[in-house]
Amino acid sequence: MPLSQRANLIPQSPIRKLAGFGLEAKKRGVKVYHLNIGQPDLPPPAAVFDFLNNYHGPVIEYSHSQGEHDYLESLVKYYHRLGHQDLDKDNFIATLGGSEAILWAIMTVADPGDEIITFEPFYTNYNSLAIMAGVKLKAVATKIEEGFHLPDKKAILSQINEKTKAIMFCNPNNPTGTVYRRAELDLLYDIAQEKNLYLLSDEVYREFAYGEHRMISILTVEKERQADLAESRVLVLDSFSKRYSLCGARVGLVCSRNKKIIAVMLRYGQARLSAGSINMLMTANIIGQDEDYLEQTLAEYAKRRQVLIDGLNRIEGLVFCEPEGAFYIIVKLPVADADEFCQWLLTDFKDRNETVMLAPAAGFYLSQGSGKDEVRLAYVLKEDDLRRAMEILAKALDKWEERRA
Amino acid sequence: MPLSQRANLIPQSPIRKLAGFGLEAKKRGVKVYHLNIGQPDLPPPAAVFDFLNNYHGPVIEYSHSQGEHDYLESLVKYYHRLGHQDLDKDNFIATLGGSEAILWAIMTVADPGDEIITFEPFYTNYNSLAIMAGVKLKAVATKIEEGFHLPDKKAILSQINEKTKAIMFCNPNNPTGTVYRRAELDLLYDIAQEKNLYLLSDEVYREFAYGEHRMISILTVEKERQADLAESRVLVLDSFSKRYSLCGARVGLVCSRNKKIIAVMLRYGQARLSAGSINMLMTANIIGQDEDYLEQTLAEYAKRRQVLIDGLNRIEGLVFCEPEGAFYIIVKLPVADADEFCQWLLTDFKDRNETVMLAPAAGFYLSQGSGKDEVRLAYVLKEDDLRRAMEILAKALDKWEERRA
Repeated sequence: MPLSQRANLIPQSPIRKLAGFGLEAKKRGVKVYHLNIGQPDLPPPAAVFDFLNNYHGPVIEYSHSQGEHDYLESLVKYYHRLGHQDLDKDNFIATLGGSEAILWAIMTVADPGDEIITFEPFYTNYNSLAIMAGVKLKAVATKIEEGFHLPDKKAILSQINEKTKAIMFCNPNNPTGTVYRRAELDLLYDIAQEKNLYLLSDEVYREFAYGEHRMISILTVEKERQADLAESRVLVLDSFSKRYSLCGARVGLVCSRNKKIIAVMLRYGQARLSAGSINMLMTANIIGQDEDYLEQTLAEYAKRRQVLIDGLNRIEGLVFCEPEGAFYIIVKLPVADADEFCQWLLTDFKDRNETVMLAPAAGFYLSQGSGKDEVRLAYVLKEDDLRRAMEILAKALDKWEERRA
Repeated sequence: MPLSQRANLIPQSPIRKLAGFGLEAKKRGVKVYHLNIGQPDLPPPAAVFDFLNNYHGPVIEYSHSQGEHDYLESLVKYYHRLGHQDLDKDNFIATLGGSEAILWAIMTVADPGDEIITFEPFYTNYNSLAIMAGVKLKAVATKIEEGFHLPDKKAILSQINEKTKAIMFCNPNNPTGTVYRRAELDLLYDIAQEKNLYLLSDEVYREFAYGEHRMISILTVEKERQADLAESRVLVLDSFSKRYSLCGARVGLVCSRNKKIIAVMLRYGQARLSAGSINMLMTANIIGQDEDYLEQTLAEYAKRRQVLIDGLNRIEGLVFCEPEGAFYIIVKLPVADADEFCQWLLTDFKDRNETVMLAPAAGFYLSQGSGKDEVRLAYVLKEDDLRRAMEILAKALDKWEERRA
């Protein structure tokens, strides 16, 4: 019996496709350092467990479809502290992780057959979620040599046609680590105004910017440039998964100054009744309560980033730019096929019975053949582990080279 | 700026649309008995809180996209106990509540523009979720006088065309309380075979059957009738929200003997990374651990059902059949417009400063004008509260009648 076209189109996650080989390696007793997935090894703020350990119900009810009251209140306070004081409760809706925020944003601005553009390499699930919604994702190329910063206006316009409904981007960027400059955000805003497009800004990694360039929210750009904020074309997609190391809690949100968008999403919310009530309350309990946590987390990732950069600098033949934000980097390897190399790392290679798991980058591109020699690394491991992982990668590349010779 | 067509099409939930009036009434100090929503007032099994109160992380990781291992194992055991011993782990995938199970099932079998048929009145979110997926839901009428049992084959076939991909149904039924007979399930199976359709069976209320007619799973029918089970056309949509009073936990699943379907859903799962890890572990911890809980819950609902039936029997001018399962009933009221009546109950009526909130049934129908004089009641309140709610409803109908006279 035939399945739907989208069932046939939906790609396997490049982040998770090697999971089976990883499990096999572990079964053989090989230690695997996971650089393939943005799963922080950090515990969340301690208040998370305090909350759970004192939770007594007595019932576990559906939340309001917009989100638990306390969660929405905490979002308002958090966004006010970020500098967006004009926002109130009805500028927000709770989602089941950032993923649902992306899916709903796509569904709200685009119909089946419509197009949304993004920049490749991109967060791979943008494409999967677009396919689920029947929407076509198109990608404008960015270059590793330019730190994956945006190309000129002409290059972006060349991908836009009458079916295009929105530009979706991630800032700071997963998978590239790029933090967009004000001029880049202005360019996107210009194009959105000119072509009457929505801007879908994924700001999940907002706090993770390491260099001289601070992350600028599209909300800030809009505030200065949009006369009638109630007619906003901006949707911010957000989640606490990375910020508070709460990946498994599935606590996200959409923020928009356009309350009509939130009203539509409330109906999507009603269609699935409620996000996770305990998880929302647990998250509300920590937002803004533990200012030190974010600072310490950022400091920790900054150290890890340096270990990663130092490690990569010691390996010959790599191409990469120092990542400016998030906790990912795309690296061009001296291999013809990174897919093959990454699989070999798990099936054939080991050094002192240890190996590394990387995400082949081709899955982060739509253009056939792009990223074939690239990998995405997530620096979410402890410094010593990262150091060792870099050492393993260096040895593996040597061995791979020998093997070919 | 125009939003998508689906954003414009997505209906407000009939279960939740009066929520604002309910809040207003409460603000005026009026006590509101909620018969509008299937939110049990029962606590979940105590082991739920034991689990949370002893949960120490230390990290809150993404789960495997198929679901937490322990949760999947517990599903296998639970379905084996239900009599489906041929199922293994790869016949299941975890979802964020039954809602995600419905959405994924629609997306797996149907593309934008395709059609799925169901029976009206139906669980209203079938339509909302179909609209989100770009799929058209079509409804075959069932009759209150026939206890909403299925019509004959001809009536069902009349709604099926070359765009139809599946039949979706809820058994025991929300909102009607109907438990389908074996002959009805066989009829659906016949039609599915004849027209090459998938069968999407929502069995969330499977344990809640009160009368002489036990709930029969479509899995049982399929087992007897399908020669090659690996080519199964059956998807079971399931959730622990009602079974264990875990509405806010968002723990659901899809079960299919067709592993190709689960493989597609695994990719949907990867696209949103993970369901809620703590909630899955918490649920795994109670499935099959507390046999008494389900028995006691069922006994409790059976008593409430009787209170409801007795109360309704005392009111003149109602049309209804005794519900056979789930914890809902559709009742035809002696009012011209149930929407208006339900709103009036919250804005103008009170008896000893109390009132009731009902769900107008029109939102459970697709056919214009159908169900206009009907409401859905959920009997999820304690016996005394239900008794009082029935008394209030009787008085309100008298008053409404006087008001018209």
